[in-house]
Amino acid sequence: MTAPAPRPVHPARTPGPVRVVGTGLLGTSAGLGLRARGVDVVLSDPSPAAAALARDLGAGRLAGPRTGPRTSTGGTDSAGGAGGAGGADGEPRLVLVAAPPDVTAQVVAAELAAWPRAVVTDVASVKRTVLAQLLAAGADVRRYVGGHPLAGRERSGAVAGRGDLFAGRPWVLCPAPGSTPQALAAVRDLADDLGAVPLVMDAAEHDEAVALVSHVPQVAASLVAAQLRRAPEGAVALAGQGLRDVTRIAASDPALWVQILGANAAPVASVLRSVRDGLDAVLAALEELAGEDLARGGAGDGGPGDGAASGAGPARTGARAALARVIAEGGAGRARIPGKHGAPPTAYAVVAVLVPDAPGELARLLREVGEAGVNLEDLRLEHSPGQPVGLAELSVLPAARSRLEDVLRERGWAVHAG
Amino acid sequence: MTAPAPRPVHPARTPGPVRVVGTGLLGTSAGLGLRARGVDVVLSDPSPAAAALARDLGAGRLAGPRTGPRTSTGGTDSAGGAGGAGGADGEPRLVLVAAPPDVTAQVVAAELAAWPRAVVTDVASVKRTVLAQLLAAGADVRRYVGGHPLAGRERSGAVAGRGDLFAGRPWVLCPAPGSTPQALAAVRDLADDLGAVPLVMDAAEHDEAVALVSHVPQVAASLVAAQLRRAPEGAVALAGQGLRDVTRIAASDPALWVQILGANAAPVASVLRSVRDGLDAVLAALEELAGEDLARGGAGDGGPGDGAASGAGPARTGARAALARVIAEGGAGRARIPGKHGAPPTAYAVVAVLVPDAPGELARLLREVGEAGVNLEDLRLEHSPGQPVGLAELSVLPAARSRLEDVLRERGWAVHAG
Repeated sequence: MTAPAPRPVHPARTPGPVRVVGTGLLGTSAGLGLRARGVDVVLSDPSPAAAALARDLGAGRLAGPRTGPRTSTGGTDSAGGAGGAGGADGEPRLVLVAAPPDVTAQVVAAELAAWPRAVVTDVASVKRTVLAQLLAAGADVRRYVGGHPLAGRERSGAVAGRGDLFAGRPWVLCPAPGSTPQALAAVRDLADDLGAVPLVMDAAEHDEAVALVSHVPQVAASLVAAQLRRAPEGAVALAGQGLRDVTRIAASDPALWVQILGANAAPVASVLRSVRDGLDAVLAALEELAGEDLARGGAGDGGPGDGAASGAGPARTGARAALARVIAEGGAGRARIPGKHGAPPTAYAVVAVLVPDAPGELARLLREVGEAGVNLEDLRLEHSPGQPVGLAELSVLPAARSRLEDVLRERGWAVHAG
Repeated sequence: MTAPAPRPVHPARTPGPVRVVGTGLLGTSAGLGLRARGVDVVLSDPSPAAAALARDLGAGRLAGPRTGPRTSTGGTDSAGGAGGAGGADGEPRLVLVAAPPDVTAQVVAAELAAWPRAVVTDVASVKRTVLAQLLAAGADVRRYVGGHPLAGRERSGAVAGRGDLFAGRPWVLCPAPGSTPQALAAVRDLADDLGAVPLVMDAAEHDEAVALVSHVPQVAASLVAAQLRRAPEGAVALAGQGLRDVTRIAASDPALWVQILGANAAPVASVLRSVRDGLDAVLAALEELAGEDLARGGAGDGGPGDGAASGAGPARTGARAALARVIAEGGAGRARIPGKHGAPPTAYAVVAVLVPDAPGELARLLREVGEAGVNLEDLRLEHSPGQPVGLAELSVLPAARSRLEDVLRERGWAVHAG
């Protein structure tokens, strides 16, 4: 009954103090992670109550009365300014700006000015606009390296913070033109110390990547989910796991997403234009097939746009081929998403087991999986309204599959292999 | 260590023999479920080997040499024809056609003709075209009630079949114009006997519903996933759970989906046109913001379509409002999807627990959840490449949350509440 223990592999590389500006989910999590490695952390937030909460959670100490060197003339500590870290050696070596995306550049510029010997990084999810604003403001970007840890959660705020939030997650580093190698190394050490996987790319490359893997999926999920608003009750009652998965992220915060999409407008628009081209091809094919259906006296609904085509066989073949192409292209794209541990996807065997919907049953199943010495690569629970049993789909390495099936059957489980 | 046992609530209502035509996933599962209730099942498939496999799996007996009454003149048993069920009382009372969608109407018509006293139903996922084709062929639709059990799997074929496939799933019943009440009652009993939740709606209503909750999400997932085909490796390395969820169903069979989309062309096109309107609104807003970005000397990429707007503040506010509206509408639509047990969604509290990536650890966690007397409503495992721990997100009734957190913390688990 021991707790899962953190496993420090090497001493922290990041020298303290690290100044964390902004004590929401990401700033607090970074503070917790660094404190767990023994690094001195100084917390600052425009809201003194927010900073105090992060301190109480163990994410660091509060910025004291200003004593460190300053180049600006401001007197109060705020996310826009920069308070002293206190003490003789209180000057931060590294500043992590974890402010909302729309004020990130402004806060980074202020921190660069306030701490002329510190390296400054940030966590904003769009990198090109931050850099452009820093350059426009004449900031000393030799000491700036943009950062983006891909470690969001569905919950936000300091209380949701955890020291291992970044463990195993990609952390993109975007050096500015003229960033020193020392600055890049310092931010890479920070990511390493927090257990993340640092990846260096330039800001434009980063923004195009997140448009593709994050921002466009968000827009698509929202657009599909929006269609459900006026659906009859009978229609939403037919919702299955597919719809749930496609629309899960539609339950996101509009205010945050306006900032993100607005800051990455051109790359997102570029990918969305390609999605629209695909959508237009699907629509053209469907309208052709619906028109033929009408022409055959079939079940077309006669709505606008349905009467496009005649009943010619070759055209119909073309329309069906266009539909097949879109689905096949989707499969090819899906296959490029890396699996757990970075392994190729769909390399796992799936063993499906029925589990009664009662306390302890799933635990018993998984205990017996563990007793079989088999490691679960993934686990999926399927359930539907009113169902007294669930289906647990256990993904395991293919070599372990038949042994696992045998063990579970011996122990009386209803095992279904696809 | 007893197996999860089926719980028969009342004797089966369906009188045998039930003739199952088509022994793929759905036909075999229906046979298994009916056999488990003691109902006599006769199996038929155009492939004798496929029928024999379903029999060996326990889904029923094979159709014997033809002895029952026939009105057609065909001699061999095939999915297109109708073999005799054998024996004195071998005439089927109910025929379940589980053939591929594009031949369903033809098989239903043949079965109606072959067994003039039997009720015939099917499982095709689009109902209007089947009905239209039956009416056009002059079939006796008084004995026909269309059916659609929403119980697909990612795997297909008889071997993936299971007797509880339909348990707790919606099973839509679509009476034809003139279907008798007795025919509807017989198909409703079948759905009941298989543990499904029967829902009666007309064919057009059904097809519009599945366009919304199934076919359009499939198209959207495929279109988003297709964008990944030519993505740089560095981009797909940033994939997170959001992208995985949105694109999961993109790994579907193109041949099957061409049949489904083709058979439901007009309703799918109608919803997709609404999606395209939303997409156009997002694109217009993004292009306006990207254009302003350019005008400010910012980070716009200068691609085609980026130079649309000037830097006017009010227009920018309008563009941001348009983006916020799309995300908010998506949230509102998402909120309409029913949760497990048909309860309102998002009513569960989530307790997040770190789990080392080693055999037995997840089982130990869930055993201790069970020992706390708490039932898991949902379970989600989060992991990412190279991560030595996973995050298990346990959804429980809100009343059970703090007790569960206390118990798990006492036992040494790292518990994170959002």
